Amino acid sequence: MATNVSPELLIVMKGGATAEQTENVVARLSEAGAHARVTRGREATVIGAIGEQELLTSLPLEAYPGVEQVLPILKPYKLVSREMVPDPTVIESRGRKIGDGWFGLIAGPCSVETHEQTLEAARVVAAAGSTMLRGGAFKPRTSPYSFQGLGVEALSILRDVREETGLPIVTELMDPRHVEEVLDVADVIQIGARNMQNFLLLAELGRIDRPVLLKRGLSSSVEELLMAAEYVAKEGNERIILCERGIKTFETATRYTLDLGAVAVLKTETHLPVIVDPSHAAGRRDLVLPLARAAAAVGADGIIVEVHPRPEEALSDGPQQIPADEFADFARSVIEVVTLMGREIG
Amino acid sequence: MATNVSPELLIVMKGGATAEQTENVVARLSEAGAHARVTRGREATVIGAIGEQELLTSLPLEAYPGVEQVLPILKPYKLVSREMVPDPTVIESRGRKIGDGWFGLIAGPCSVETHEQTLEAARVVAAAGSTMLRGGAFKPRTSPYSFQGLGVEALSILRDVREETGLPIVTELMDPRHVEEVLDVADVIQIGARNMQNFLLLAELGRIDRPVLLKRGLSSSVEELLMAAEYVAKEGNERIILCERGIKTFETATRYTLDLGAVAVLKTETHLPVIVDPSHAAGRRDLVLPLARAAAAVGADGIIVEVHPRPEEALSDGPQQIPADEFADFARSVIEVVTLMGREIG
Amino acid sequence: MATNVSPELLIVMKGGATAEQTENVVARLSEAGAHARVTRGREATVIGAIGEQELLTSLPLEAYPGVEQVLPILKPYKLVSREMVPDPTVIESRGRKIGDGWFGLIAGPCSVETHEQTLEAARVVAAAGSTMLRGGAFKPRTSPYSFQGLGVEALSILRDVREETGLPIVTELMDPRHVEEVLDVADVIQIGARNMQNFLLLAELGRIDRPVLLKRGLSSSVEELLMAAEYVAKEGNERIILCERGIKTFETATRYTLDLGAVAVLKTETHLPVIVDPSHAAGRRDLVLPLARAAAAVGADGIIVEVHPRPEEALSDGPQQIPADEFADFARSVIEVVTLMGREIG
Amino acid sequence: MATNVSPELLIVMKGGATAEQTENVVARLSEAGAHARVTRGREATVIGAIGEQELLTSLPLEAYPGVEQVLPILKPYKLVSREMVPDPTVIESRGRKIGDGWFGLIAGPCSVETHEQTLEAARVVAAAGSTMLRGGAFKPRTSPYSFQGLGVEALSILRDVREETGLPIVTELMDPRHVEEVLDVADVIQIGARNMQNFLLLAELGRIDRPVLLKRGLSSSVEELLMAAEYVAKEGNERIILCERGIKTFETATRYTLDLGAVAVLKTETHLPVIVDPSHAAGRRDLVLPLARAAAAVGADGIIVEVHPRPEEALSDGPQQIPADEFADFARSVIEVVTLMGREIG
Repeated sequence: MATNVSPELLIVMKGGATAEQTENVVARLSEAGAHARVTRGREATVIGAIGEQELLTSLPLEAYPGVEQVLPILKPYKLVSREMVPDPTVIESRGRKIGDGWFGLIAGPCSVETHEQTLEAARVVAAAGSTMLRGGAFKPRTSPYSFQGLGVEALSILRDVREETGLPIVTELMDPRHVEEVLDVADVIQIGARNMQNFLLLAELGRIDRPVLLKRGLSSSVEELLMAAEYVAKEGNERIILCERGIKTFETATRYTLDLGAVAVLKTETHLPVIVDPSHAAGRRDLVLPLARAAAAVGADGIIVEVHPRPEEALSDGPQQIPADEFADFARSVIEVVTLMGREIG
Repeated sequence: MATNVSPELLIVMKGGATAEQTENVVARLSEAGAHARVTRGREATVIGAIGEQELLTSLPLEAYPGVEQVLPILKPYKLVSREMVPDPTVIESRGRKIGDGWFGLIAGPCSVETHEQTLEAARVVAAAGSTMLRGGAFKPRTSPYSFQGLGVEALSILRDVREETGLPIVTELMDPRHVEEVLDVADVIQIGARNMQNFLLLAELGRIDRPVLLKRGLSSSVEELLMAAEYVAKEGNERIILCERGIKTFETATRYTLDLGAVAVLKTETHLPVIVDPSHAAGRRDLVLPLARAAAAVGADGIIVEVHPRPEEALSDGPQQIPADEFADFARSVIEVVTLMGREIG
Repeated sequence: MATNVSPELLIVMKGGATAEQTENVVARLSEAGAHARVTRGREATVIGAIGEQELLTSLPLEAYPGVEQVLPILKPYKLVSREMVPDPTVIESRGRKIGDGWFGLIAGPCSVETHEQTLEAARVVAAAGSTMLRGGAFKPRTSPYSFQGLGVEALSILRDVREETGLPIVTELMDPRHVEEVLDVADVIQIGARNMQNFLLLAELGRIDRPVLLKRGLSSSVEELLMAAEYVAKEGNERIILCERGIKTFETATRYTLDLGAVAVLKTETHLPVIVDPSHAAGRRDLVLPLARAAAAVGADGIIVEVHPRPEEALSDGPQQIPADEFADFARSVIEVVTLMGREIG
Repeated sequence: MATNVSPELLIVMKGGATAEQTENVVARLSEAGAHARVTRGREATVIGAIGEQELLTSLPLEAYPGVEQVLPILKPYKLVSREMVPDPTVIESRGRKIGDGWFGLIAGPCSVETHEQTLEAARVVAAAGSTMLRGGAFKPRTSPYSFQGLGVEALSILRDVREETGLPIVTELMDPRHVEEVLDVADVIQIGARNMQNFLLLAELGRIDRPVLLKRGLSSSVEELLMAAEYVAKEGNERIILCERGIKTFETATRYTLDLGAVAVLKTETHLPVIVDPSHAAGRRDLVLPLARAAAAVGADGIIVEVHPRPEEALSDGPQQIPADEFADFARSVIEVVTLMGREIG
């Protein structure tokens, strides 16, 4: 193997691979401008490939006859990796901060239903020390017969409420055709779990100048989440907040399985802030506080939770929204852990 | 409970629920125009609710104090259910059929790379008896550094190849902004696994007059797949082909876990044709044939497989594409099982 | 339906079920000594069954022609449920406590390897305030070629180390033939994840007078864990500590996915103490501290972690064991969160 | 790297690893009698280790400072691998065969309930061409309140029924203390999914002279299943039949997710016969036939299905047992596929 550069890929040939098969792989690597170092062994031959990583990983080497396995050595993400940017990124919006020493406390109703409901929720969460207001205008719903959000009308409500409370607005973008309208109001643009691998939408967000809150897909690995963020970053926008919100598993006692281990891993892998959505993971409100506290304790850079003046009248996700009149206590309890962790509310 | 209508929902109150809490639920149901029948028991009270199902299921009853559980009685999907349409639907395109007695054999390259490559693959699959040509123009890729498809150029190649071979074209639509261009060429519009819950895109397809091939999401349940189809059907387009393509599980020996049990369930739940994509599930070509045969044996209405003239040069999914020169044998072997099942190639 | 007792089961008949099919179900229920109340509706008939729950749930009612669904109303576990025993159980062993206000800090090597290694670890964890010593004598290993534990020899080492440090011993029992030997030394008998549904072993533990630490199976739901505990409790031993240690999911960034939501659910469902094993879930030591802190914050009653004087020489689980010389800092950091939660080290 | 032997392990050092850290790893390898070849690169250093594989894989190399990743080159299983034994193994019992060209058709009741019920089922399955009789004496049940099997009494019923029908008996062993009693009757000893990693029980079976039917654990990977078989083989008993019976996933439309892709993989990895249990995977009888046919088509060496004279009276698994009077049709339909696959009923 090379003496002064490390391979990007190790290609392990099958036990019975012929010399010709090995040469074919080497020839293809050369063609692609890569260097190949062959190590022949008792039972297997290993080829180390050195070159442009993007190019190397795009070669379909596993399809070559005689190839057993292709092992990448470097991580597939770059711009979002901590190796690239060792210092934690802080995302700012209207003076509020998330990342590094700053903990973001994002709260608000699942859906924007009326001006009154949204304003009432916003006042409560602002008073309790929240740093941003969440509120859904466009709602992805499993059933076409469920409430789909107020759309553009909700955006205008959010703008009004921001004026009255000063809270920056976090709201979801579901469709590239809505970019302009959403951009007109949103301070942070949320990409929901079901759109985490909507790659054209991600690229679109990479070309705008606005922080993005990217939720982990229901069955996306930590690596896939980072690659989704890389889509945004590659186009030029590195103001990305990652969000763990629970994954699909066999367990049905909670709506999704909140993966706080993934948060701990993300904190070692990326410089981007990582927040947690305990509301959607839990699916029932009595679990939201313990999970929010756990999120703060595991090292998350913030939480995003659902709050409603009257959850029993909510048009979506009623069972998991925190009643507005309980939110001050909720926030106080979470802030205790944040303080213990040596952080400040951003 | 009511004597002449069945409840749509059963609401089970908690052991310690007060009479007032029960009354609140009943009042809300009445408000919503539903009838409620209360059964008080030793340890729990059960309320049966009769009314417009869409309305009932949109009520956030689980958020009411004292409510233990809300149990829906009817299935949440309607238009796509076999109860609604007892006879199996047959989808036709340019004279080829999928559904009921007709088995669809869809084959072609993962990505359209060049005119030559696509034409070569198309000729081989046509000669072997395939009924449609697949070929990706827009490619959803985990990494932004991977080949993303030729886009519009690929569409034009597909149109040419159709002219030369007569095979109807199946190609993926990823973005609502491409509807017109894709519609211009595609005979069947594919929605990929990562877009199965891109609800606005689904609704868009509900308003066009073209069959849709809807792939199951990587972590979507059978019920969620049917609800996604319901989004399309609700807007007026009931020409939908469902596709099982493997789900995410802990197992890594295959790329995804092909869920043929889901195919068997779907055949009892819906009148829509159900096909299987063994290529993406397997992730390696030696498993594609056994899985394709198993798909035919479990009762699938077709398969969609990847074929490439030279998989080792493929720009995507090389390891799982069947070499074109092996496809005739492959097809013959699958057709044996199709024939045993009493079906014909459509 | 009955007016003064609640049904244990609701049996929903299919849309097209005949009167005779309904009568057959009712007849079977009567035979079994249960009362049945029939409610006929527009599209479905519902039968409420009242009687001995054990008996009712053992009837194979779903196999009867015409039956759509059988819905149990009551929880399947009893003795371990909070409804049965509203006050939290405190487990004591040699003066150390777990449960209610008492947080258990269990630490020690994965495997007992030598007297020196075990004693060294024990002294360090005792000095740092641990309440019990863990150490594996019998080791369940995926490969038959891996170190399988010292067995009986390890038990004798553990007895010696307890004498020198005073720490109660937690060690795993894998086989009913070892009950006597393990009972001779263990203060708390651990049942590993792979034996959670070894029902005859569970029953054996139900007949002894020693606390049991029952780990959740790798693919066991919260309900299955509680049913496993019910096996022990049913035989008479209610001194059971439950342990969340990560479940199998598609995510490979951590060895298992630690399910802290399950801990929050368990705290509402059962009176038994619930602890967390962050070491096995993480599989790498740098994640153990954040997950241990999160466990304390979510409301767990304790943690069990792996500590080794020289992890790089460990015969099992080296990558996840905390080096002994870092354990004092580790413990201090966890205790901060325990204190914030208003609890004391037991 | 070595020129004439292939490495068993590749140890990839971290980007910032020091020369000393690399030397420590090399020193440890030497100590363990292994050869190490170091390749220093631009961003990483890779060490290839050659030596006794068992020893190498037992070294906790990932715990060494500076180590990024340890990549094994050889498969961890040996005795059960196809590389070791290229020809497929045929298991015989009382003249019936499973493996290679022989397809095993194992059928019978879930539980042995009475002599009459068992005999009735046995006669029906024998008449329809089954090759072995299944019947549970010891039943692993999730709830302690469910029927646990007749135990020893069932074994004696099975012995009588074998005398009357000539069918070899397949029955489950749950506990090492029952080995002698079960061995006294069983022609094939079944290890259930929940005991697949009961390693001491597996070793016990390795020391007896009787075929073992080893079911895949609910969350066990293909590799873990093969390692469990390796436990049996290592002790000397290589007459092992592997069985896929569905894994735990998020999907609830079937009781478990039948993983036929795993069957296809197993057929390439091991010389042992691989059968499929569609009954437990499906959980409902209407899905058993399509899944059984799919199992035959994917290349399984047999199936094991549940048959009961009167499923509606069954003491366990009623919903999934095939009524005895439908079994002849069922078997005929499966045999059609078996014949198409070029195999014979063993």
